[in-house]
Formats: sequence, structure tokens, C-alpha cells
Amino acid sequence: MPNSFFNELLQQLSERGRAMLGLARDAAARGDVAELSEHLLSGRGEASGVALAKAVLDTYANAPLATRLAFLTALAERFGADPQKVEEAIAAYHDKPGAATLHRLHTAAEARRQELMRRLNLAPGGTAALVRMREELIEHLPNRPDLRAVDADFVHLFSSWFNRGFLVLRPIDWTTPANILEKIIRYEAVHEIHDWDDLRRRLEPPDRRCFAFFHPQLVDEPLIFVEVALTAEIPGAIAPLLAKDRKPIAAEAATTAVFYSISNTQRGLGGVSFGNFLIKQVVDDLKRDLPNLKTFVTLSPVPGFAKWLERERGSEASQALDAEAKTVLAALDEEGWHEDPATAEKVRKVLLPAAAWYFLKAKTPNGRPVDPVARFHLGNGARLERLNFLGDTSAKGLGQAHGLMVNYLYALEDIEKNHEAFAGSGEVIAAAAVRKQLKGERASRTLVPVTD
Amino acid sequence: MPNSFFNELLQQLSERGRAMLGLARDAAARGDVAELSEHLLSGRGEASGVALAKAVLDTYANAPLATRLAFLTALAERFGADPQKVEEAIAAYHDKPGAATLHRLHTAAEARRQELMRRLNLAPGGTAALVRMREELIEHLPNRPDLRAVDADFVHLFSSWFNRGFLVLRPIDWTTPANILEKIIRYEAVHEIHDWDDLRRRLEPPDRRCFAFFHPQLVDEPLIFVEVALTAEIPGAIAPLLAKDRKPIAAEAATTAVFYSISNTQRGLGGVSFGNFLIKQVVDDLKRDLPNLKTFVTLSPVPGFAKWLERERGSEASQALDAEAKTVLAALDEEGWHEDPATAEKVRKVLLPAAAWYFLKAKTPNGRPVDPVARFHLGNGARLERLNFLGDTSAKGLGQAHGLMVNYLYALEDIEKNHEAFAGSGEVIAAAAVRKQLKGERASRTLVPVTD
Amino acid sequence: MPNSFFNELLQQLSERGRAMLGLARDAAARGDVAELSEHLLSGRGEASGVALAKAVLDTYANAPLATRLAFLTALAERFGADPQKVEEAIAAYHDKPGAATLHRLHTAAEARRQELMRRLNLAPGGTAALVRMREELIEHLPNRPDLRAVDADFVHLFSSWFNRGFLVLRPIDWTTPANILEKIIRYEAVHEIHDWDDLRRRLEPPDRRCFAFFHPQLVDEPLIFVEVALTAEIPGAIAPLLAKDRKPIAAEAATTAVFYSISNTQRGLGGVSFGNFLIKQVVDDLKRDLPNLKTFVTLSPVPGFAKWLERERGSEASQALDAEAKTVLAALDEEGWHEDPATAEKVRKVLLPAAAWYFLKAKTPNGRPVDPVARFHLGNGARLERLNFLGDTSAKGLGQAHGLMVNYLYALEDIEKNHEAFAGSGEVIAAAAVRKQLKGERASRTLVPVTD
Amino acid sequence: MPNSFFNELLQQLSERGRAMLGLARDAAARGDVAELSEHLLSGRGEASGVALAKAVLDTYANAPLATRLAFLTALAERFGADPQKVEEAIAAYHDKPGAATLHRLHTAAEARRQELMRRLNLAPGGTAALVRMREELIEHLPNRPDLRAVDADFVHLFSSWFNRGFLVLRPIDWTTPANILEKIIRYEAVHEIHDWDDLRRRLEPPDRRCFAFFHPQLVDEPLIFVEVALTAEIPGAIAPLLAKDRKPIAAEAATTAVFYSISNTQRGLGGVSFGNFLIKQVVDDLKRDLPNLKTFVTLSPVPGFAKWLERERGSEASQALDAEAKTVLAALDEEGWHEDPATAEKVRKVLLPAAAWYFLKAKTPNGRPVDPVARFHLGNGARLERLNFLGDTSAKGLGQAHGLMVNYLYALEDIEKNHEAFAGSGEVIAAAAVRKQLKGERASRTLVPVTD
Repeated sequence: MPNSFFNELLQQLSERGRAMLGLARDAAARGDVAELSEHLLSGRGEASGVALAKAVLDTYANAPLATRLAFLTALAERFGADPQKVEEAIAAYHDKPGAATLHRLHTAAEARRQELMRRLNLAPGGTAALVRMREELIEHLPNRPDLRAVDADFVHLFSSWFNRGFLVLRPIDWTTPANILEKIIRYEAVHEIHDWDDLRRRLEPPDRRCFAFFHPQLVDEPLIFVEVALTAEIPGAIAPLLAKDRKPIAAEAATTAVFYSISNTQRGLGGVSFGNFLIKQVVDDLKRDLPNLKTFVTLSPVPGFAKWLERERGSEASQALDAEAKTVLAALDEEGWHEDPATAEKVRKVLLPAAAWYFLKAKTPNGRPVDPVARFHLGNGARLERLNFLGDTSAKGLGQAHGLMVNYLYALEDIEKNHEAFAGSGEVIAAAAVRKQLKGERASRTLVPVTD
Repeated sequence: MPNSFFNELLQQLSERGRAMLGLARDAAARGDVAELSEHLLSGRGEASGVALAKAVLDTYANAPLATRLAFLTALAERFGADPQKVEEAIAAYHDKPGAATLHRLHTAAEARRQELMRRLNLAPGGTAALVRMREELIEHLPNRPDLRAVDADFVHLFSSWFNRGFLVLRPIDWTTPANILEKIIRYEAVHEIHDWDDLRRRLEPPDRRCFAFFHPQLVDEPLIFVEVALTAEIPGAIAPLLAKDRKPIAAEAATTAVFYSISNTQRGLGGVSFGNFLIKQVVDDLKRDLPNLKTFVTLSPVPGFAKWLERERGSEASQALDAEAKTVLAALDEEGWHEDPATAEKVRKVLLPAAAWYFLKAKTPNGRPVDPVARFHLGNGARLERLNFLGDTSAKGLGQAHGLMVNYLYALEDIEKNHEAFAGSGEVIAAAAVRKQLKGERASRTLVPVTD
Repeated sequence: MPNSFFNELLQQLSERGRAMLGLARDAAARGDVAELSEHLLSGRGEASGVALAKAVLDTYANAPLATRLAFLTALAERFGADPQKVEEAIAAYHDKPGAATLHRLHTAAEARRQELMRRLNLAPGGTAALVRMREELIEHLPNRPDLRAVDADFVHLFSSWFNRGFLVLRPIDWTTPANILEKIIRYEAVHEIHDWDDLRRRLEPPDRRCFAFFHPQLVDEPLIFVEVALTAEIPGAIAPLLAKDRKPIAAEAATTAVFYSISNTQRGLGGVSFGNFLIKQVVDDLKRDLPNLKTFVTLSPVPGFAKWLERERGSEASQALDAEAKTVLAALDEEGWHEDPATAEKVRKVLLPAAAWYFLKAKTPNGRPVDPVARFHLGNGARLERLNFLGDTSAKGLGQAHGLMVNYLYALEDIEKNHEAFAGSGEVIAAAAVRKQLKGERASRTLVPVTD
Repeated sequence: MPNSFFNELLQQLSERGRAMLGLARDAAARGDVAELSEHLLSGRGEASGVALAKAVLDTYANAPLATRLAFLTALAERFGADPQKVEEAIAAYHDKPGAATLHRLHTAAEARRQELMRRLNLAPGGTAALVRMREELIEHLPNRPDLRAVDADFVHLFSSWFNRGFLVLRPIDWTTPANILEKIIRYEAVHEIHDWDDLRRRLEPPDRRCFAFFHPQLVDEPLIFVEVALTAEIPGAIAPLLAKDRKPIAAEAATTAVFYSISNTQRGLGGVSFGNFLIKQVVDDLKRDLPNLKTFVTLSPVPGFAKWLERERGSEASQALDAEAKTVLAALDEEGWHEDPATAEKVRKVLLPAAAWYFLKAKTPNGRPVDPVARFHLGNGARLERLNFLGDTSAKGLGQAHGLMVNYLYALEDIEKNHEAFAGSGEVIAAAAVRKQLKGERASRTLVPVTD
């Protein structure tokens, strides 16, 4: 099997009259990706660059797992910077500090794999192949901290190649090609799309929109997409938005655009952020097309809440929950608690203050909110607008947050100010109603860790 | 005037609810591009990134020359690396050499303007604005060697952004939009296109082709383009190819594709090479569409020949020309010499051997051919195929090369081998007929500098 | 409901400053489509034509069934030709026969509804609305023979508007927009497409193709489409072609293109034929892209066979079946007969000769084959190539043809000859193997009705 | 020459395996277009229709003039209706008047060339070929009244095929493909476009627009186009609009859209009107994009004025001019009269009242304005808004109208009313200022012929 692949590969190359020199051909035949890569790097010109880059990527893609991992390891070990050149560059810099010697130092300290990655990107489909390579790398990272440097170089290059200036926003609707729509179905990470009929209900009604960022090199791959519902008011629960039998409204009648699902699609592009650009551009586009829209808001999950609450319930030192609250929350352990109105009401009175604490006072070691979705939207300059009790009573919603959902509000005139406050002092901007839930507390607007 | 611009700019920004914080607004109002840039760089998140990047680029574009030059200078002086961080990174590396400390050193030694350029690229039209900024920078370079480090960073980033993987090849023909065609007219650098009728003669006949590379971020700008004539044999002169009254042949009847003009269009992308990719992809595309094509060849100018010959004629130590040759070549000083058949014939016998010497033996200090066009095609793996006496008798052709033109042959099966030989030992691959012109010499195939 | 519609409609019209004169507005408000149509027809210029045409079509589309039927009746009764003008034109023609008076007669005898339909076509979406109107008309025809004249005028105009010169062939594949693909699912009339996964299996594998004709005025509506399988030999059964787990082959390895399903989509375009153009253009396109394809063949159902056979079995005078054959065919009445090999083999020996008779000797009153699919392909110049026993054992296949399928062969060099023979003398062109099945008969190649 | 053409043609046909039967091939070889046409018409099916249609059109296009004229004559003589069938159809109708017999009569009276034209339209490029055929026919008409019946059939079919519902409006600008732009240069019929720079001045500035109608079958051919200037007021002269050095204004600052040139491009489509649809759709599109536009007006030539005035000056019975006026107007015979302010002023006082008479009172025999441009715009529902003395002092403008230009105003809310008045009673709707120019007259708003 590998043999026939290499044979075919070699035949193709020779058919195209692009005979690689002897050593490269041997390396390809042996499936030695790292040696092939050395040939690619050593080429003084670019005459054979495209063909060699293709050979490296094809050989890698068709190699068994062990070979692929060996290559990733080689990227870390063999394709770093040359220590001797680094020392020489340091000496030269110390000898004569200045732009020229700094530039030399910068270049000397650059891992050789960066140039290798740039050359691999020459191959047709090279960008996509590199994204998949990093996807594989990410899976190894937990067990292989030595590969982190390789990962950092991937992120560095991808940040440059996937610069927002190169991304293209496209509406996704029922006239979008099926091969792209099936990826929307597959990649939806927040509220699962069950089948094509379900997808159509999210795209075709007049009060639904969907937008995605694309990159010219990955034409059939949405990089990130957002699903939008146009409504008459800020919704507090997801089920009515997705109900099969709901009545759509006219787009022009809507005052509110609800971002109810944002999904990244490429694990290999993790760490390269486009989400904030997406939301802001979608807000701009929607405002232009539908001037009646006044409110831009999310309906978001709270993925870390149940886990945090469990810890607090088990912690004697919990500042968030007192004994009485813990007693009430024991109801959460009974399945179906939310279907009994009396129980639900009792829980509500305790759970919402706890949620307020979770958002406003619970912090990671470096002073950020513990909820990752909160960090994303607050970092974008949004405001925590409302806590929605039992907003998502699906198994997933109950499991991760006891049904809690929240709205983050994107008020364009405040985004900058909110963002600066959050980025600077870590301040969580929240509506008064949210802050009031902190019972017994002086619900000051400024609940920064320092002042608590 | 500038005031009204800034007012309008600020109004726009505030209209979009993207109020910049006080200091950035002041900087914009003062037209202080460097300070605005500091704001852009210091932004912890990207909430205001796009608006600030736009403000920097707009302010720069509308500023007077002195302000613009001051900003370029600031890029060199204020936006380099931080020496203290560099020293710390060096110390850390020496303390514990390894991937992590190397990465830190690499990052510390990176000029801050690189990150600045990446952020400027966020603005709509950012890439084009940066290309124009470098175009301006290049003009200052001869007098301002201190700006070279800035230039190197531009080249580094452009090489990544304009990676061949991101370029798109498009045919240019008479159905191409007029705004692109006018750029073909304007940018043609080899054989001037006089007007739209002239352009049409190069695009519309069945035996003419034109191809250009485009980048998704510069949609209306061909980056480089090549004009192709389909012929029945290798041509020796340009005039018949461009004659108004020539008879086109059917594309299917052609055996030879002649690349008779290759023009780069963006001075701001100088040093980022796409030419070799262009030729190779065009060869591939033509072969697929017209399987009868067997020969791929250029008809190229020899821009450095006249100047070199003048030097040799004036040099007593010339190895290329003996006294007799110099006497004959005195005819070149008479205007119209080429129109007298007898004179022309005498000159031919001396000029062609001199040209062979020029290509095969004249070298730059680092052992490369002195002719820049020769360096380009030989570096791509082409072979110097034929010397064409009086191939271009236009004023320009006579002025730069006494009418000499040459053909470089792209034989796909030899490209790799040729390229390696040239890149490695500097060997100039030339057809036997060219080598024979070196009279009195043992015209060995291998005329590497070492053996001279 | 209708009121709000008319109000909105009228408001729109007045908003656009296209106030209709008093009477037309009254007619619209009353929903009197016929009177609105008179206004449209009487307009001397076209100033209000588009708005009035839209009003007629919108009013019709939103009217209740009785009103719509009343309008169709009015088309027949009120919008015919003017008898007085016809008589005058006849008199003028008799008085002075010639091109001018003939033209006047032709014009006078034209039903006024033709001009009305042409004017309705001015409205945005007018063509689609008229196609739907005829779709409705067709349903009434069986009970309303008086509407046949209206139908004939529709066919006349549609034949002109949907002239093959105006149709565009487009490949349908997995990158086709979903709103078109769902119509492929819905309209597939031969072998049902169960869901999107089923659809994908017919479009995405390398050995599958699909093509459709589109019309510029009905952009999202495929008018007719054909599904194609690329194979290594002529298939005899449908199930293997559609099997979920089959192994695709490379398109370049295929020698045979099998048209296994052809579906018209617009009932309203019944009687306007494009099927033969579709097949011939698809053959041309496939040959150009895949030169290895040598054989173009259908795998077709035999929709009239079971019904015909039942009649023959019950007829004492049957020439097609003798007593022995009838006895054997009694097995067909047992469910599951085809699953018992011995029974199936006995049936096969009788059923295939009967099928040969069905195709070659059974005729309609005007001497054509009784099978409608046979009439279509033979009329296109195809040849009846092979009878496939148990080619379709689905419930539908057993029900309509006891599992029989056939192949029609499109041999480009014979199409014209075959077509002329069929169109002229009604000769059924069939392969020798088919003709041999006529047992006891001298299976002459020419089995024209005359000789029976 | 014709031989080689036919040979090649026949070879092509046979290569495609579409051998025509013997007689058709003979006809093609002889260049007998009419006989080929009979073959096309007689084909019972459509198996060879496309190939035969192509053969007819190619043979026609490549035949010498005499052959082509013979074919047009044959269309008139041989391809009319069959008199015997007409008589039978008349008899059947008289026997039993009704929809069925009327339909038969209509069909019998239809010239056979109509069906022939529909079948010719099957060929690739058939529509364009038929338009060119009629273009040629039109040139013969003045000398060949017997061909008028053929022309009428062309118009009938073209009106159906080029129904406004099938036309597509496209903006023409500087990004439009060059092969279309060159047709704009070539076809501009009102104010000549001198070269590409001139064209660019009409397309590229922010206050210029151009729109054209296209038909899907003639993709590269604009059928009609209109050039628009966006201005701050209604202009009275053409020169400032076209001046090389004028200062463009921002599109958003414009209040007025001026249609200053409307050109039909296809002589072969004469009599098929799209002009009124074009103007109305352009008005709609402009209003949507630029809501500040309030006034839609033409700046139009007066092509019949100079000729009419000459007649009136020479007529003793002239009601439009008295003796004094004739004396003043003698100045028009001096070249350069308009450059002398005093003369010009004297002329103005007489010429404008004469122009008012020309528009409001001079009528064709059937009661319409004598000016063709006036008939077009008034028929569309526009109002004669202003007379512009010396609006066009080019040689053409002076020659046809002594420099006079006029504005027609398209006031959307009045279009319908104006159109009905003009179409009904022939009333010329004109602004009060125009009517006042009728000196000595009671300038009633209603100057219908009856009152003259």
C-alpha cells in the first residue's frame, strides 16, 4: 500500500518532468519525511520547491501514525535554531548593538521549522495540510510538552496567514452549496443540528441568519460561524428559538439580533482568534441591511457553572454559598427537579445569586472570570446583561449549567470602554439586575478582585 | 485641509460608535502617526484594532511628505526591539539553552514594527496601504541606509502574506474588466503598449495569451503578468510578433509558446519573487489546454549588454574583446549602423562572440552572470538557447543591447537539473550553438567561474 | 386575509408612484382577475404594464380556487379571437389573397389570451407564475374539455420561451446550492431519493454525474435532469448501481455512461420537450471530459409492461401468449415468485419473449410502441439494446413490469438513421438479441407494423 | 472558398456522428439554404434539428449576397402559409365556429417561416444569427416591399423572445469587460464617444452611471443602454456635462439624475421596444441606491427640428412663423450665428416660440408629435419640461436643431396619467413655461389636435 503510493507519487513527479535529485527521491521512497524536509529547506532556489513541498505533505499524510509522530518530534529536535549561529549572533550584537545585529539575532533565533512551514505552504493545498498537521500535533501536546515549541511556531505563522485582513465574511443560507452546509451541520458545537431539516429551520425562515468567515486558501471550509435569530425582544431560553412549530416574523419587524451559537470549526487553528471580528462585522452588516435592529445580544451557555457549583457545594470554606443555600441546592441531585414548579422556584432563589457570584467574583489565578464563554464576550467588550434561569433544559444544558443561560449585550457605543476596563483591571461589566443578585453584598458596579 | 480630513475621520469613527480613548483621538487630530501606532500596539485586545489600524493608515496617507518620512524613521528608531528584553532573553537562554528560551529570544529580538505591521493589516485595504508604504520607503533607501532594517521587515512579512500558495493565476484577455486592463497597459515594462488598440492586438488574436497572478487582498491589481505568443517556431525578433498586420495562426497549430514580456507591477513588493512560479504554472496550464505545444521559450531583452560592452571597449585589459573587435565595434557609435547590411554583417561577426562572453564568462563579484534577466531565467532552471542579432531594433533595444535579444528555453525535464547546477556551482547552462560563439575558446559545456 | 393582501398590494403600487387608474384599482380590490386582465390588454402603451401584470398575477395567486377557475374559464370564453374581426379578415383574404391579408387573418384568428400571456410575462416572476397557472389548468382538463384551447396557447408560448436555444445545461453535484438539490430529491420520479445521504451517494462519488437544464427566468428550478452512472459495462439491474456499500471506480476507468433516471420537474411545462436535447448534450459533454467513454446507454423502466401482460393473459385471442405461456405466467400472481430460483427461471423463459413482443409488435392505434419510455428513447434515435430480467425487484419495479428493465443504446453514428426510420415507418430498432427472443418468428430486423 | 467552408462544415457534422441524410447534405454542398430549411422543417422529430439548424445558418452566413437575398425572397414566397390548408380551415370554421376551429384557422394562417425561425433558434448562437439576418433584411425593405411580411414575422418572434421578462439590467462601469465597453463606444448614437479616455470620463467619476439591458442569449451584446449624469440641478446644455475638466460631485450630493444619452445597439431588433422599461427600471434602481435623488430628467436632442423649421420658413401658409419671425431666422443661414451674442439673442426670441409650436402643435398625419424623441418620451409618460436654447452647439446639434435641446421630466407619480392622456387623446403634457412660449396663443394646458 505505501509502496504503491510512493510509486504513483514518483511517477507523477517524473511525468511532470520534475525529477527530484537522487537523494530526495530516496527519502520519499523510504517515507523519510524529515529528510525530504531537509531537501526542501536546502534548495537554494525554488525550482523544485512546489514539487518537494507536495512530496513532504503527501508522504506525511500517507505515513502511519508512528512515522507522523516521528516527524513532529523531528520538527522539535532537528528543525530548531542552530545554537552556534545563535551564539555568533549574540556576540555580534553585543559587539555592536543596532538594528542590523538585532535583525541577525532575530533571524538566527528563529526555528528553522518556520521557514520549512512557509515552504510547505507552497504546495497546492498546503495551507489545509498544515492546519491538519497541527490538529494532530494538538492531540499529542498533553503527553508531549517538548512539542510545545513546534505548536508556538504554528500559531505564529497561522496568525499571520489567517490575519483578519485575509478573511472573507459570507452569509450562509439555503442557497449555499451543500458541501459547505454539511460542515455547518458537522461543526455546530453549541446546539446540535440533527439533520438537514433542522439545518433548514435555522437558515431559511425570514428571521434567521448565519454568517461564516472563509479564507481564500480553504475555500470549502467555514472557519467560524455564528447563527443569528431576529426577534422582538431579548430571549431567555433556547428551546423556543429552535422550536419546529414556531412562527417566524418578518425581518423588518425585528428589533433584536440574537447570536445564539458561535462555533469554531478548525481545531488546527486553535489559538488564532477570529470570533470578535466575526461578531463585530456581523453587527455592522445586519445594521446596514436592517436598520430597525437596535439590540445585539447573545444567548449563551455557561459551560463551567455546574462544575464550579459542585466544588462550592462541597467546600466548607465557600464564600459563594452558605449552609442554607447548600441545602436548597441538594435538590439539583434529583433528576427532573426542574419539572416540579415548587422545587424549581426554591432553587431559582438560590441559584441566581450563586450564578452572579460565579460571574462577578469567582476568578482564575490570574484574575479573570472562570467561565470561558464569559471571558470571550467580556474580552470583546460585551456586557453581562441577564441571567436566565432554566434557559436550556436539554440534557447538555442541565448537565453543564443546571439549565442556566445568559445574555451578553453588544452595545456598540460601549464596546471600547468595556473592553478597556476588562482588559485593564479585569472589571466585569454587568447590568444592574445581575449585580443585584449578589445578595447581602453592596452590589457596586466595580467588582474587581482587588476591592473585594 | 488636513483638519477637515481628521474631523471627518473622527466623525466616522464616532458615528460607528467606536470612540477611541482620549489619547488616541488626540494623536489622530495632531496627525501623529507614530503615537497612534503605539496605541494600536498597546491595545491588549482587539476591540478597537480595526478602527485604530484604519486611523493610522488614513492619517499616514493624508499626511505631508515630511510627516510620512518622520513616521518611517520612527519605525526604524522607536519600533525596534527592546534592548533590555533582548538582554534578559539572552541571559535566560544562556542560563538554560532550549526551545523555550530560544523562542523567547526570537520573540524579544523581533522588531516591534513587525507586530505593528500585522495589526495595520487588519484595516480594510490594509495590505494595499502597506505595499504603498513600502513603495515610498524604497525611494528613500539610497539616502537613508538606516531604514534598511524597516525594509527587511516589510520583505519578511510580505514573503509570508504573498506566499505562492495564496496567489491566484488568472488569464487576461479581451473580456477582462477595463480597470485591470488599464493596469496592464500602464505596467508593461518590456515592450510598451501604446494604447487600447495595441493592447487588444496582444490579447484578442487566437495565438496570443496573457496571464497574471492576483492576491485575494489586492483584487484589482495584477502582481505580475506574462504575455505569450503562440508560434510555429522559436522567434528571433520582437517586431514581427507585435506587427499590426501580422496574420494570426490557430492556437491548435502552434508548437511553441513564447514568453515575450514579463512585468512586475508592484514596486512595493520588490524582493518578493513570484516570477518563476508564474512561468511554471503558465507552462502547465498551456500544455493542458494545447497539447500540441512542445517548446516553451522566452524572447528576452539583454538590459546590461550595451553598458558592459562599452566598458570592455574602453578597457585595455579586456579579455572579451581584442583590438580588431574593438575596431569593428566602433561602427556601433554611428546612428543607423544596423540599417546598412554590410556594416551590420561585420558587426554581427564580432558582437555575437562578445555576447557569448557576456553571458558565459562575465560575472558579478559573487560569481553570477552580470545580466539580471539571465540571472532570473537561469535561476529558474532555463537554458540560454539562442542569441538573436538585431532582434529588437527599437530605440530601447538598440540603446540597451545594440539590438540583441536572446531566447531562454524552459525544457521541463531539465529545469531541476539546470537549476541545481546554476544554484550550486554557478554554471550557466547554454545551448551548444551559444557556446560555439566563444571563438578561440575550448567551448566546454562547463564554464564555471572557478575554471576561468 | 384577502383584504389585507389587496391593501398591501395597492399600497405598494401607490408607494412606487404607479397609481393605476380608477377602474383597474377597483378590479384589483374586488379580486376580478379577468377585468384586471382587460385593463392590461387595453393599455395602449406599456407605461403601467409591469405593475398591472404583477397585479393580475398576484391577485390570481391569492384568490380562492373558485375565483381562479373562473379566470381560467374566462380565458377560454372571453379572451378568444373576435369573430367579427375573423370574418372581416377572411373576407379581405378572399378578396385579395396574399401575404398581407394572410398575416391579417393569422392575427385576427389568434386568441387574445396569447397577447395577454405575453404581457403577464412582463411582471417580475411572470414566467414562473404562468407555468404554475398552467399546472393548475392541467388538473382541470379531464373535466373541462372547454379549457383545451387555453392549454394549447400555453404550450405554443412556452415552446417559444423555453426553446432549447434558451436553456442552459448545468452539472449538479455536491457543491450545488441546497435549494436546488432539495428539488432534485423532490422531483426524482424514477428511483426515489430517500434523503440527503441517498442524494449524496448519487452525486459525490467519482463515478456519478448529474445534469440539468435551467432557464434564465426560473433560476432555481431545474427543468429536467438526468442521473448518470459511469461503469465498466452495461448494467442489467438498478439495485447494484444504487447500493449503499458499492465501490466507486475512477471516472477515467469507465467505458460506459448509464442514464439511469430522467425526470421532468415542471408539470406546467408538460408537452414542451427537452429530454432529447438533454441526453444529446450530456453525451457530448461527457465524451469531451472523459474520452474513454465509448458506450452511452440507459437503464430504463418498462412502465406499461405489467398492465399489457395482464391484458394478454386474459385475452383468448392473444397472439403474444399461447396457453402454455399463460400457465407459466400464473406464477406471477404469487408474491415473492422471483425469490424462488426455479420459478424465476421458468418465468424468465416465457417472460422475455413476451417482452420482445411487447416492444416489437404491440402497437398503439397509430402504430407506435405501447411503452411510453420506449417511444421517447426510440424517437430520439436510440436502439433497444437488451432486456434485463429482474432488473428492478423493488415493489415499484415488480408492480409495473414484473421486474423487467431494458437498456436503450445511444450510438451517435446511428442516431439520425434510427430516428428517421422510427419517425418515418415506425420501425423499432432493436439489437439482434432482442429480436431473437421472438420465438417461432423469423426475427427480421424490420418488424414494421405493415408486415404484421 | 465556399467549397472549403462546406467541406469543413460537412466534416464537422460527420465527425460528430451526425450524418445528415443524403438530400440535406446535397443541399448544404450546393449552398441551397432554402432547401436545407425545408429539411429542417420537415424533420418529424428533433434528432437532427440542432445540426441542421446550424447548417442552415452557417450556410447562409457564408453565402454571397445574391444567395442570401434569394433565401430572404424564398422566406417570403415559399415559406408562407399553405393556401389550401387555409381554405380548408376557413371552411371548417364556418362549418362549426368555436375555439377548436379558430385555433386550426390561426395555425393554418401562420406562415411556415415562423416555425422555421423557431427551429433555427435551436442552433448554438441561433438567436444572434437571426438578429443579424433581420438586420440584413431591413436594408432591403425600402426596395423590396414584398419582404415586409417576413419582417413582420421576425418582429413577432423577437417580441416574444426579447420580452422584458427575459431582459437583465446590468450597470456598466469601468470594471466592465473590455469587449462590452468597446460596444458602448461603437454604438453610442447620440453624443459620440471618441476613445477609451472619453469613455472612462463617462463611467468612472462618482457622479456618472450607465446601465444596459442584456439578453441571456446575447451575453456580450448590450441591447440598449442609457448614460446618466448625477447633478445638482437640471442641465440645459450638453457640453458642460461632457467637459474634460469638469469637477465631479459626490453621488450622495446629487438631487437630479440626467439621462443624457439612450442608444439602441441592435438594428436587427428595431421595432422591439425596451427603452421605456430601461428608463423606469433605472429610475427605480437609482432611487433605491441614492435616496437623495428627487428629479429624473433627460437632456435630449431634437432631431427633427431644423428640417421642420426649414419647411415652415419656406411655406407661405406657415401658422408657426409669421413674416417677422422668418426674417429673424434668416440669421440661421449664416455660419457661426450663435457665436454673436446679439444675433443669438434675437434668434432666441423667435426660435423658442417656434420650438414650442413644433412640440405642441405640429403633428404627424395621425395626430402625433413630429419629433421622434418626443414621441418616445411622451409615450413613456414623461413631461416636456424645458426648452434649452443653444444646448448643443456641436456641428451635429446645430445641424439638426440649431442647437436646441430639451428636458423631459419623469415624475413617477404622473407617468401613468401622462401616458394615458398621450396615448388616448394625443395630448402633449408640457410644463407651463413651455406652453407660455406659444406667444399670442391662449396657452391652454390641453393642446390636443382637435382644438387646432
